[in-house]
Amino acid sequence: MPFSQAFFPAVSILIALLSFAFAAWLYGWVKKQPVSNERIIHVGGLIRRGANTFLAKEYMVLAKFVGVASLLIFLFLPSPIWKNDFIQNLTMAIAYITGAVFSSIAGKIGIQVATIANMRTAESAKKGIRPAFMSGFRGGAVMGMAVVGASLLGVTLVYLITDNMTALLGFSFGASSLALFAKAGGGIFTKTADISADLCGKVELGIPEDDPRNPAVIADNVGDNVGDVAGMGADLFDSNVASMSAALVIAASLGKQININMVFCYAAIGLLASIIGVATARIGKNGNPTFALNSSTYVTTAIFGVLTALATWAFGFEWRIWGASILGLVVGVIIGITTDYFTDDRKNPVRRVAKASESGPAFTILSGISYGFLSTLPAMIGIGVSALGAYKICEPLGGEYPMFGIAMAAVGMLSIVGMIISNDAYGPIVDNARGLAEMGDLGDEVLEITDSLDSAGNTVKAITKGFAIGAAGLTVIALLGAFISEVNQAALEHGLGLITGFDIMNPVVFFGMLVGAAIPAVFSAMLMLGVDRNAQRMVSEIHRQFKEIVGLKEGEPEAQPDYDKCIEIATHGALRELIPAGLTAIIATICVGFIGGVQAIGGFLTGNIVSGLLLALFMSNSGGLWDNSKKYIESGANGGKGSESHKAAVVGDTVGDPFKDTAGPSINTQITVVSLVSSLMSTLFLTLSIFG
Amino acid sequence: MPFSQAFFPAVSILIALLSFAFAAWLYGWVKKQPVSNERIIHVGGLIRRGANTFLAKEYMVLAKFVGVASLLIFLFLPSPIWKNDFIQNLTMAIAYITGAVFSSIAGKIGIQVATIANMRTAESAKKGIRPAFMSGFRGGAVMGMAVVGASLLGVTLVYLITDNMTALLGFSFGASSLALFAKAGGGIFTKTADISADLCGKVELGIPEDDPRNPAVIADNVGDNVGDVAGMGADLFDSNVASMSAALVIAASLGKQININMVFCYAAIGLLASIIGVATARIGKNGNPTFALNSSTYVTTAIFGVLTALATWAFGFEWRIWGASILGLVVGVIIGITTDYFTDDRKNPVRRVAKASESGPAFTILSGISYGFLSTLPAMIGIGVSALGAYKICEPLGGEYPMFGIAMAAVGMLSIVGMIISNDAYGPIVDNARGLAEMGDLGDEVLEITDSLDSAGNTVKAITKGFAIGAAGLTVIALLGAFISEVNQAALEHGLGLITGFDIMNPVVFFGMLVGAAIPAVFSAMLMLGVDRNAQRMVSEIHRQFKEIVGLKEGEPEAQPDYDKCIEIATHGALRELIPAGLTAIIATICVGFIGGVQAIGGFLTGNIVSGLLLALFMSNSGGLWDNSKKYIESGANGGKGSESHKAAVVGDTVGDPFKDTAGPSINTQITVVSLVSSLMSTLFLTLSIFG
Repeated sequence: MPFSQAFFPAVSILIALLSFAFAAWLYGWVKKQPVSNERIIHVGGLIRRGANTFLAKEYMVLAKFVGVASLLIFLFLPSPIWKNDFIQNLTMAIAYITGAVFSSIAGKIGIQVATIANMRTAESAKKGIRPAFMSGFRGGAVMGMAVVGASLLGVTLVYLITDNMTALLGFSFGASSLALFAKAGGGIFTKTADISADLCGKVELGIPEDDPRNPAVIADNVGDNVGDVAGMGADLFDSNVASMSAALVIAASLGKQININMVFCYAAIGLLASIIGVATARIGKNGNPTFALNSSTYVTTAIFGVLTALATWAFGFEWRIWGASILGLVVGVIIGITTDYFTDDRKNPVRRVAKASESGPAFTILSGISYGFLSTLPAMIGIGVSALGAYKICEPLGGEYPMFGIAMAAVGMLSIVGMIISNDAYGPIVDNARGLAEMGDLGDEVLEITDSLDSAGNTVKAITKGFAIGAAGLTVIALLGAFISEVNQAALEHGLGLITGFDIMNPVVFFGMLVGAAIPAVFSAMLMLGVDRNAQRMVSEIHRQFKEIVGLKEGEPEAQPDYDKCIEIATHGALRELIPAGLTAIIATICVGFIGGVQAIGGFLTGNIVSGLLLALFMSNSGGLWDNSKKYIESGANGGKGSESHKAAVVGDTVGDPFKDTAGPSINTQITVVSLVSSLMSTLFLTLSIFG
Repeated sequence: MPFSQAFFPAVSILIALLSFAFAAWLYGWVKKQPVSNERIIHVGGLIRRGANTFLAKEYMVLAKFVGVASLLIFLFLPSPIWKNDFIQNLTMAIAYITGAVFSSIAGKIGIQVATIANMRTAESAKKGIRPAFMSGFRGGAVMGMAVVGASLLGVTLVYLITDNMTALLGFSFGASSLALFAKAGGGIFTKTADISADLCGKVELGIPEDDPRNPAVIADNVGDNVGDVAGMGADLFDSNVASMSAALVIAASLGKQININMVFCYAAIGLLASIIGVATARIGKNGNPTFALNSSTYVTTAIFGVLTALATWAFGFEWRIWGASILGLVVGVIIGITTDYFTDDRKNPVRRVAKASESGPAFTILSGISYGFLSTLPAMIGIGVSALGAYKICEPLGGEYPMFGIAMAAVGMLSIVGMIISNDAYGPIVDNARGLAEMGDLGDEVLEITDSLDSAGNTVKAITKGFAIGAAGLTVIALLGAFISEVNQAALEHGLGLITGFDIMNPVVFFGMLVGAAIPAVFSAMLMLGVDRNAQRMVSEIHRQFKEIVGLKEGEPEAQPDYDKCIEIATHGALRELIPAGLTAIIATICVGFIGGVQAIGGFLTGNIVSGLLLALFMSNSGGLWDNSKKYIESGANGGKGSESHKAAVVGDTVGDPFKDTAGPSINTQITVVSLVSSLMSTLFLTLSIFG
């Protein structure tokens, strides 16, 4: 069937608008839920204000960064402005700014709803698990719908307005640079607060988690929102945009409109499937929240599979590409499930780490690191198999089709991202709700309900995280393909030879690979040291407050801790620490590019992907494993709460916190950023390098 | 000048024999040193017997492995015997066995001298630091001379007898498979004993290190010998043979005898330079042992540079190759020095980790891991630069010369390996001497001397370890070159197309790369879990002895602990745990090869090298960093011995132990083994793979 070039983009825009409408309805629904407890309203307000304060400051810093970056883009990209049509550079700069703005709006929406949903969830828990679950889940779903709607809308608009694939990469780069800092900054904030609150509260003073006397307790709850809601949203916004952009760039190089149509069609179907999945999510009266979350994920997956098959049949897309896309989705689910094995407290790894904790913290750490290392294997094989499989399925189509297959496998894996974000954002909302229930004195029965909601959040998070890393892996392989497309376009323009690939035996490639492989390690180290330094600042502040505020330790009602001061420290510190880490990755890319040219960059990106995936999987999984081992011991195993093994498990959990919530998930974004920097600077690297 | 083909090999044999003669003289000198203290003789005897027991059992297990492996080689390599000349397969199998036997003889010699030198060093310390240093250093030098002499002799003999480069790879594979198990087995043994002894002795009972009441104390001292002397010797034997073999394979493919001559000439000069360096090592009367060790390393380096320049001039070798070789050596020294920054207690990283320990063990771990990650960057860049530099220097020579340049850079970096092993083996000898001095009640003054010798050992070890990893990195790049030579030789024989490299954009290569990158993580995890399980067994045994042997805890003279039982547990456990880890790496290689053929193997090896180097550097350096932070705190900083920060630092040190002495250094060998398996099986992978 013939369609105008604008047909599928128009459908995408419609579905994106539908998702916004649905998000607005969900938002209204959440807001309608009653909240009456004074204390919850008070504390909830503090959290909301703290999160907004952080966001405002963060966006201010990022605005400056984006300002400088867009100026540089305007001057130099895709080619220096004095050698180029200035409209092209201007388009690029505007696309870049738009990417950053769209991502930040989605993040802002997420925070707005999360910080009202947490109170509603806590209150609803008085009426049982069902209404509490619905508040938490629908709150998270607002974020899911907003992020995926905004990313689809943004990509489509940039495509329709500019009809320029490089501008799409600019848009994607805008989203990535925001994600890099939002994820890293939020990650530093959340773990600074979490670690300091635990260290001073639980460990030193022996007061419970979420005790309102602890000056860091509000910062801790703010952290869940800015790290896990806003940061995670920006991260998946980025992955989603990057996978669509890579697919579109490669589709364009194939020279047929139908392939571009296919990308929009599949992305729109993915969002539609997520809308249906979210709308139908239910939990039985005394039901199992984990089951509810997972089954709606499977429903979404199935709907996507069926609808894309119908679309492929109706619109005459290539069936092989459909196969690649479904392969990506299925492998994503498998990666999620196998990864889950390493963090599930009914399985061996968590239990063995809990057992090892009986011999002291060194053994908690050693066994956790070991299982974290082991856990990388299934995902690495899975990503490899899906890339290889997608390629082989599409090989008979010839030309660039196999690479398009890989890109569409990534699009397939990320198709259900709306559902995944909903599940992911559910986590911090119910975690917050637990804290509010504690501070609002809602009683043990309510705490039990919020605990069970929280634990479901942790389990689901492990699966979605594996999914996200797998998708990022495929996406960056596709971005490597997009990089080659960009390089060759530039090579044509400059009358240079085309490149077909990167030979490992070329020492320039190998040099790039070794440097690229070290970057994720350096980047995570800088973030973790940032958390460490920042936590030390905050711990001193907490000590100061307990010393200077009379009656605080004893819990006298008129002795109020200065929550704001802690939030301020976490905010300042996070912003101070995140810039050097991000810049290091970007500057290393630029140096390698100017030293070794596009061949060195090919190696650099490969080394970065390979070691980045490995470290991201290792850190996310061992972090989750320690968290769950601690919870497992707290449930009474291996000596239970307060025992020596529990203390050892707390050490593991503290180490795991920045692993799984700061460094691990930021690596994805770091990889995407350097891939996009490389693509955007390909002309410069091609023409100006020393050894290239 | 024209030389017969046998001239340079003959010179190599002569120098190898000279090194044996020198080793024998040193052995005699060490043996002549007096030892009179009854207690030292008794305990020293126990250590010697324990080490020999372990070695005997280990070699027994390895003999079975080597037996099975050589049968498989005979049947299948280089081609299945029914398709091939059986003499070729027999040569290969014999070369393989010879490699394993030569390596084990060198290890055995090292243990023989180390277990007498430790007693002499302890006794000599009564007379001052000078004689004690000489006993320790010369004891270590016996190992250095034996290992390098045996590796040079072995390679030369195999070359002269078979004139077959593939047989050389077989010899190298024999050395590697022995090293894989000796290093991993010894590493598991030593850390099992070390951790258990510390945990039960220092932590639980509060008795000092090396207290004779501790049933694990002898096993701990045995461990130093089997892990750090025998294991490390096998490891560097392996690297040295691999670098020479890779250089010879590539030299042969260049088709000129002069290049082969050059390899033998440079290797012989390296050994000669080490002999001179060892012979001239001196320490002033109240001198600084670190300075003495380092300055003899620099002397060796300088001699190598001058003599190879003379040889290049005299024999008309290519000056560019000389340049590549010297570049390798210089970069090796730089890697050693920069790496040292991260483990030196006068520098920031160690001090910051010590400071972080004040906040508890979680911060010791987090900051140590972070600095460990950071420490990978200089070495990764260094290896990349030396490979790129060597290639570029030799590029004007054309053909395979640039790859030969990389191989010769590795030979250059490893040229001073004799000196490095001497320094490395010095460490465990003086560590043992410290223990003997403690058990022999030699008094505080003697302990002070042995402590200062020991601390010099630790410092020097950090540098030599960086060196060894750098050299291994270059060697495996050269092995990748050797792999291509082998594949193309097989391709010619089978009338298949030649390969010139491995394109990253080929998804088969990418698939191999992802799997290859996961293997070092899996391999190290298995070793660390092995240590963990084994230590738990040993801790139970120690608890049993303290419970059942009356008067042991109180130190009554007739209450003797059962040292042998602990040695037995460590031995059995180590052997039980090492085989699965080694087999996993080998089987993964074979699977990837049969699935994706030589292209997938190219990716697999690359991923393995890149992630292996990264993890090896990370683990070795963070391990050394934690060790020195603990020692720094023990010297009185950050609260000193017994403080909370000291306890936290002990946790770091315990985590670091298997990092730096088991997993980290074993990864080198793992990489070499899979490279050699790939080269040897190249014909099979070329002709029998599914996707290749």
